[in-house]
Amino acid sequence: MSTNKSFKLAVVGGDGIGPEVTAEALKVLDAVSANYGVTFERTEYDLGAKRWHETGETLQDAELEEIRGHDAILLGAVGDPTVPSGVLERGLLLKLRFALDHYVNLRPSKVYPSVGSPLANPGEVDFVVVREGTEGPYTGNGGALRVGTPAEIATEVSVNTAYGVERVVRDAFARAQARPRKKLTLVHKNNVLVYAGHLWKRTVDAVATEFPDITVDYLHVDAATIFLVTDPARFDVIVTDNLFGDIITDLAAAISGGIGLAASGNINPDKTAPSMFEPVHGSAPDIAGQQKADPTAAILSTALLCDHLGLTEAAAAIEAAVTADIEERTGAARTTSEIGDAIAKRAAG
Amino acid sequence: MSTNKSFKLAVVGGDGIGPEVTAEALKVLDAVSANYGVTFERTEYDLGAKRWHETGETLQDAELEEIRGHDAILLGAVGDPTVPSGVLERGLLLKLRFALDHYVNLRPSKVYPSVGSPLANPGEVDFVVVREGTEGPYTGNGGALRVGTPAEIATEVSVNTAYGVERVVRDAFARAQARPRKKLTLVHKNNVLVYAGHLWKRTVDAVATEFPDITVDYLHVDAATIFLVTDPARFDVIVTDNLFGDIITDLAAAISGGIGLAASGNINPDKTAPSMFEPVHGSAPDIAGQQKADPTAAILSTALLCDHLGLTEAAAAIEAAVTADIEERTGAARTTSEIGDAIAKRAAG
Ligand SMILES: CC(C)[C@H](C(=O)O)[C@@H](O)C(=O)O
Ligand SMILES: CC(C)[C@H](C(=O)O)[C@@H](O)C(=O)O
Repeated sequence: MSTNKSFKLAVVGGDGIGPEVTAEALKVLDAVSANYGVTFERTEYDLGAKRWHETGETLQDAELEEIRGHDAILLGAVGDPTVPSGVLERGLLLKLRFALDHYVNLRPSKVYPSVGSPLANPGEVDFVVVREGTEGPYTGNGGALRVGTPAEIATEVSVNTAYGVERVVRDAFARAQARPRKKLTLVHKNNVLVYAGHLWKRTVDAVATEFPDITVDYLHVDAATIFLVTDPARFDVIVTDNLFGDIITDLAAAISGGIGLAASGNINPDKTAPSMFEPVHGSAPDIAGQQKADPTAAILSTALLCDHLGLTEAAAAIEAAVTADIEERTGAARTTSEIGDAIAKRAAG
Repeated sequence: MSTNKSFKLAVVGGDGIGPEVTAEALKVLDAVSANYGVTFERTEYDLGAKRWHETGETLQDAELEEIRGHDAILLGAVGDPTVPSGVLERGLLLKLRFALDHYVNLRPSKVYPSVGSPLANPGEVDFVVVREGTEGPYTGNGGALRVGTPAEIATEVSVNTAYGVERVVRDAFARAQARPRKKLTLVHKNNVLVYAGHLWKRTVDAVATEFPDITVDYLHVDAATIFLVTDPARFDVIVTDNLFGDIITDLAAAISGGIGLAASGNINPDKTAPSMFEPVHGSAPDIAGQQKADPTAAILSTALLCDHLGLTEAAAAIEAAVTADIEERTGAARTTSEIGDAIAKRAAG
C-alpha cells in the first residue's frame, strides 16, 4: 500500500532521556514509513526544563496553537529535579493533554515471553488500560489557604462529568468489542468516592446495554492492584479515571517486562486536535545522555501513532520488529541507538 | 509479667467471613492473655449488612458513644454486595475511623520465606505503611449535581491540613526511628496534586530536621507501585495519604504472601479514643460461612492490638505463634478454626 501521504509531526524530545529515545523512535518511523509511501514532516519544539530555566516559559499559547496544526505529536519525557515539581507537568504535559482534549489515554500491556517479569508466573498478559485523560483529580482544581502556617489547608478536587465519563467509557467498550476476549473491567473506588464512583458505575452499566456481547466487571482500585500481581491475565480492557489509571499503568508496565517497554497514546478520538504519543516512563535524569535508556517504549509509541493515523500496516510492522528484537535479546548491553538501529532495520524489512 | 489487668474490648464481627476470622482472633487473644494475667471483657456489636437490611441502621450515635468507652475495638470485615456500595463503608467503618480519630492506619508487610509470593524474587521484605486515616479523599467531601442526566457533574474533594499531615508524619518518623534501618519514604503525587502534595512534602522536610538520623526519600505513587514489585526490600517506613495508602497496602499485602496475612491497626496515638484493629482483607462473601477463610490476618491484628495496649510480650507471643504456624504450612487445607486452634495452642506456649 503506497499512499504518498505526508503527515505533519510535532516532536517534543523534552528532558532527560526524552531526546535520546525520541531520536530512535523517529529513526524507526522513517524506516517504516518509507515502505508505505508515507512521510513525516517534522517540527521540533524545544520545550522542557532547559527552556524553562532559560526563559521561565513552559508552553506558550502561540506554540500550542502551532502544535495544534499538526497531525500528531511525538513526546519523549518531561520533568527534571531542578524544576519545582508540577511546573513542567502542569505547564507542559498536562496542558497539552487537556488543551488537545486527549480524553483517551491508551496504555497497552503485554508480557513478552523472553522478557523477564518480576512475577514468578505472569501468565498470558495482554490487556489495555483506557485511562481517562481530561478530568478526575488531574484538573488542577483545588487550592491552599494559609500556606506554610500550622493552619494550612490544601484541597484537590476530582471533577467528573457525565459528558467526560461517557465518552471514554464508550471508547473502552468499542475497543473491547474489537478484541477477541471482549471483556471490560471498570476500576474505581466507588465504596468511598461515592459521587464520582457512582457516576462511573452507572455510566458503564448504561453503555453496557448497547454492547451485550461484552462481559463487564468492576474492581475497586485496591483490589485491582492485587489482581495485577496475582492474575494479570484476567484483564482485557480496563477503563478507569485519570489518577487510578496513572497508578495501575505503572504497575502494569512493571509486571509486564518493565517501564522500558510501555508505550502510550494520548488520544483525541474525535480528531478535533492532534493526538500525542509518548513512552509511559519518565525523564530518568540519572541516566540521561549516556545512551543507556531503552528506546523500545518510545518506538512502540510510534506504532500507536501509526495506528491512530490509519497506517495499520506500518503500525504492525513496527510492532513485529519490536517483538522480534525483544525475543532475541540476550541480556547483552546495547546502547540506545544500537537498539534503535536494530529495530529500524527489522522494521524496514 | 502478670498485670491482672482487664481491658474492655468492643467486637464487631461484621459481614461475610468477618465473624469467622474474628472468632479465631479472640481464641488466640484469650489463649495468650491468660499467660500475662490479662483479661479482655468483650462486648459484641451487631453491625453490618444484616443489621442494615433489618433496620436500615449502620452505626447509631448512641452505639458509637458506647464503643468509645472501650479500650480497643476488634473488627472483622464490613461490606456486602446486597448493600449499596458506600453505605456500610461510610456509615460504619469510616464513621468509626473518623469519629475515633484513627489518624494512623498502620499496615505492616513482611515476606515469610515459607509463604509463596507472586514475585519471583521478593527479597527481604519488612516494611510498614503509615497511612493517614482521617483526611484526604476519604472525608466524604464532594457531591453531585443533576444526577442521572447528561449534564451530571460529580466531585470528590481531598482535604489535607497541616494539623492532620504533621501528626501522622511525626508518628511515621518516630516509628522509623524505632526500626533498625531508619528510613522513611513519602509516597504522594506532588507533580500533579500540587496543593496537597506540596503540603505533604514540606511537612516531611520540616519534621525531618528533627530526626537527622532518618534517611528520607520521596516517590510518586505510580513509581512506588513499580518498586513494590521490582524491589520491595527497599522500603522501611512509608508514610502516605489515605487513598494512596489504601492502594499500596493492598499491593503490599499481595506481594508479601497475600491478603490472608495482612493485619492493620487504625490507631489513635493520643489515646483520646479506642483504636481499632482489623485484617486488611474484605468480607469475601463468596466464601463466607464455609470455614475457608484464613484467620491469620485477624489474629495478627490482635498482636497490633496488644502492642498498642502496652502488652508487648503478648504481642510478641502472638507474632511468634503465627510465624511458627506459617513456617510449617504444608499447603494442606485447614479450616478457619483449625488454623485458629493451631495458632492459639502455640501462642499459649
Ligand atoms: C509526569 C506525570 C504528570 C504523568 C501523569 O501523572 O500522568 C506520568 O506519570 C504519566 O503517567 O504519564
Ligand atoms: C472497605 C474500604 C472502605 C476500606 C478502605 O478503603 O479504607 C478498605 O479497602 C481498607 O483498606 O480498609
